[in-house]
Amino acid sequence: MKNFILQNENAIYFECKFSCDNVIFLNLEKERFFITDARYTIEAKEYAKNCEVIESSNLIETTKEILKKNKIKKLVFDPNDFSFATYSKLCENLKVEFIQKPNFSKEKRLIKSEKEINLLKKAADAGRVGFNELAKYIRKNGFDKTEQFLYFKAFEKMSQSGKLDISFEPIVAINENAAKPHALPTSKKLKLNDLLLVDAGIKYKRYCSDRTCTSVVNFEKFSFKREQKFKNNKHQKVYDIVLKAQLNAIEKARSGMKASEIDKLARDIIEKAGFGKYFVHSTGHGVGLDIHEYPNINSKSDLIIEDNMVFTIEPGIYLPNEFGVRIEDTVVMKNGKAIIL
Amino acid sequence: MKNFILQNENAIYFECKFSCDNVIFLNLEKERFFITDARYTIEAKEYAKNCEVIESSNLIETTKEILKKNKIKKLVFDPNDFSFATYSKLCENLKVEFIQKPNFSKEKRLIKSEKEINLLKKAADAGRVGFNELAKYIRKNGFDKTEQFLYFKAFEKMSQSGKLDISFEPIVAINENAAKPHALPTSKKLKLNDLLLVDAGIKYKRYCSDRTCTSVVNFEKFSFKREQKFKNNKHQKVYDIVLKAQLNAIEKARSGMKASEIDKLARDIIEKAGFGKYFVHSTGHGVGLDIHEYPNINSKSDLIIEDNMVFTIEPGIYLPNEFGVRIEDTVVMKNGKAIIL
Repeated sequence: MKNFILQNENAIYFECKFSCDNVIFLNLEKERFFITDARYTIEAKEYAKNCEVIESSNLIETTKEILKKNKIKKLVFDPNDFSFATYSKLCENLKVEFIQKPNFSKEKRLIKSEKEINLLKKAADAGRVGFNELAKYIRKNGFDKTEQFLYFKAFEKMSQSGKLDISFEPIVAINENAAKPHALPTSKKLKLNDLLLVDAGIKYKRYCSDRTCTSVVNFEKFSFKREQKFKNNKHQKVYDIVLKAQLNAIEKARSGMKASEIDKLARDIIEKAGFGKYFVHSTGHGVGLDIHEYPNINSKSDLIIEDNMVFTIEPGIYLPNEFGVRIEDTVVMKNGKAIIL
Repeated sequence: MKNFILQNENAIYFECKFSCDNVIFLNLEKERFFITDARYTIEAKEYAKNCEVIESSNLIETTKEILKKNKIKKLVFDPNDFSFATYSKLCENLKVEFIQKPNFSKEKRLIKSEKEINLLKKAADAGRVGFNELAKYIRKNGFDKTEQFLYFKAFEKMSQSGKLDISFEPIVAINENAAKPHALPTSKKLKLNDLLLVDAGIKYKRYCSDRTCTSVVNFEKFSFKREQKFKNNKHQKVYDIVLKAQLNAIEKARSGMKASEIDKLARDIIEKAGFGKYFVHSTGHGVGLDIHEYPNINSKSDLIIEDNMVFTIEPGIYLPNEFGVRIEDTVVMKNGKAIIL
């Protein structure tokens, strides 16, 4: 793929180590162009690697001029990356064949470099610091706090009070709200022996962390550790199944397996325990510059897992109107095996 | 416009008072459809007004089936609202003429109802509470705090510790960082007599607030009031010009004017003071369900301003590597005049 065009910030960052929220990136056979407006050219010239920075007040027109000047005949683009409006303006009066390759940047980013893995490890470490600080807060002051307030505290602790960006809005859900895989925080208050699910992550130098913990609310002993002693027997039973499923997938995942086989390692445990229909999502997703990238770890994917892929393993059981449990870690494949980052 | 299709959450919310992050909304001559997946159908059936909720695991295919069944021949869509990928899948093997109407939903939302103005007023009030709480914090504890930490505090105070959503990431910028209209928070620390720019807003029942204050950092007397006594003479001079420009636009704006005339009311003051080239953006933008909607208040817009339009008036002067001043309020046109919400 010699000639391609990008608009997505993370896809562009991957190419040249810089990005901003108004840019078109052109990768041509002999040259690469970072086309942006006056607000960003100074920083782009300093940080964007191996590309020419072009200042423009009309990115699309400038892009078209460069394509004409370089007599480009074919150009690859991701149809998910361009709105119909932008695509139409690009094509208008231009003799270039636009070739659709959905998600080609995510495909390029499927296998991480050592440098990227190192950044993802640092992101995971910083994410753990955030979880630990949140646990400390809950031990001392969590009683009777609302989900909304705990959501705010999760933002505070994960971001280290604004020092780090978060990789997505934290999910903080108590009991029946945890049964919704994408719960929004409510005014429900945290009480003794509740079940609390927290799903949160941060970015370290643009690379994401992602982790979910489900815990019993026993205030002074509260933690996000994997060993949890729930007061409620059903909580404990379901938790133990999900944990067993997650550990089974992490322990037995191997490079060379299909993604669907890793999904099955988790799903089989849950199905055998009779909760298969309550595990309503796939087992995991890739993590990198985007919080969701490749590989998808689901029951249909024939993709072969390889060393240096990074993805989550996050089985869950969701009992509507009762409670939900999800346990998630981000792993890297190394020497054929999954290692928690 | 009898038949149209929407994907944008706020555009859909405007039509039926409910929305979610995976939905296609079809407005046909005789019927309206809210097509979503199993996660959202219960709430959609409860809250979405005057439309049929359809559960689907493939929204695009279901949409096409409905279009075929209803023998729809023409369908209006916003080319900014659909990715090229989604548009292509919709068109494939379907005999429907898709008619592009860029921003037609924003056009429908240009003039607000009394109910909407009431919600925007409540959003503005809640935003002011956030600013006041942030000022209180800065008076007591602001000294030596980084922009990053103050950004976090802005999030805390504006959101009332997680109770409200914010309408955009707050901008918190000191001195030369305030010269960048879209500054990101750094580790720069707040000192006596600094200039501090804060641009922040919240959502009240999905309606946005938007306000910018520029203040002198005199700790125990710190406030976001419009009267500011800067220690630095150039700060004061530029501040006074921006304030005069903003007040001139607010006082003299009239229904029946072109948007460009309101822009000119602010811009003329700044140009006459010799800072024209440092006022690098337009004077304002509409505010509603989206933080940026119509009308645009810029030098080129011939749109006639009418009663019940809601927009910001936010002139600014940005002196690179020195400092920037922006003063912003959201106003509603009522009885021909602009009233600060």
